[in-house]
Amino acid sequence: MTKTGPSPSPSFVRRIPDGDDRPRRICEDCGFVDYENPKVVVGSVVAWQDRILLCRRAIHPRRGFWTLPAGFLELHESAPEGARREAWEEAQAEIEIDQLLAVYSIPRISQIQLIFRARLEAPEFAAGPETLELDLFRWQDIPWEEIAFPSVHWALGHFQEVRDQPSFAPRSNPPGETGDMRRR
Amino acid sequence: MTKTGPSPSPSFVRRIPDGDDRPRRICEDCGFVDYENPKVVVGSVVAWQDRILLCRRAIHPRRGFWTLPAGFLELHESAPEGARREAWEEAQAEIEIDQLLAVYSIPRISQIQLIFRARLEAPEFAAGPETLELDLFRWQDIPWEEIAFPSVHWALGHFQEVRDQPSFAPRSNPPGETGDMRRR
Repeated sequence: MTKTGPSPSPSFVRRIPDGDDRPRRICEDCGFVDYENPKVVVGSVVAWQDRILLCRRAIHPRRGFWTLPAGFLELHESAPEGARREAWEEAQAEIEIDQLLAVYSIPRISQIQLIFRARLEAPEFAAGPETLELDLFRWQDIPWEEIAFPSVHWALGHFQEVRDQPSFAPRSNPPGETGDMRRR
Repeated sequence: MTKTGPSPSPSFVRRIPDGDDRPRRICEDCGFVDYENPKVVVGSVVAWQDRILLCRRAIHPRRGFWTLPAGFLELHESAPEGARREAWEEAQAEIEIDQLLAVYSIPRISQIQLIFRARLEAPEFAAGPETLELDLFRWQDIPWEEIAFPSVHWALGHFQEVRDQPSFAPRSNPPGETGDMRRR
């Protein structure tokens, strides 16, 4: 697509649609009601033997910091399909999903994160376009000071807790934690 | 809000925004990019002693059929907060959430359903505006022929499986099941 000039922009107002109970964003020009709901992030803690796959972010926010292969679930995907797609896009890795590790809620940015425990099928991976580099880390070598987001910390800790458990209840936010970067 | 005439309507076209990798809906009039992602439904299997709370739907789709207290997660809610709000709105019930029972993916309609195991704090409930009536059912009295959606069947069955387990791995779609009403 060639850019031919500035895009027009929507003229949103907030009001309560008929039959609804809370204000929604409505475009005054075109009448579109933008029902905003939380978005789902799907991702995985991916292990190969005693090591964990981490990706160094090539994109903002938190460019240069380490994260899990994760991203927004797309339309018509199941949650495990989305997690496998993200592992492929960000790490060119084929993963086998084991079970749900955690469900985190990040209310300030309206995200629900579904993080799976997964295994690499083979120690083969390569940086996708959103990744600067990636590597398999032993627990003691994880770059804790350069982790991108609070929920990546949580997921790594929760993975370690259940590492030897064949079956477990999924974890959620640590008590009192909202995932808000500004409150850490 | 008084209706003063027909609303204008957006003129959506599908094209790939710059820097993206798949087509998105873009309004030709106002330039709005409608990033559509799956929506999260939060709900609960709510028990009181040996009975389960079900609600008969007052709204389409599946008006008159029985369902769980569940609905769309709203912005800035955590998943458990949303499940508690839905139990309050639909059944005027105060619930105590125990743990995540299941994560279902319904790809055709792009829904992720997070269903919790919960308890009524007291046997007090009343129909909200989206509910015709509601009742507590013993397992053998559940109106199986009048259940609203496949995922309600799944959640009830999964609840029964783990009823006596203090901790368990959450369930997901039964093998081969997509939740699609038309494929049942």
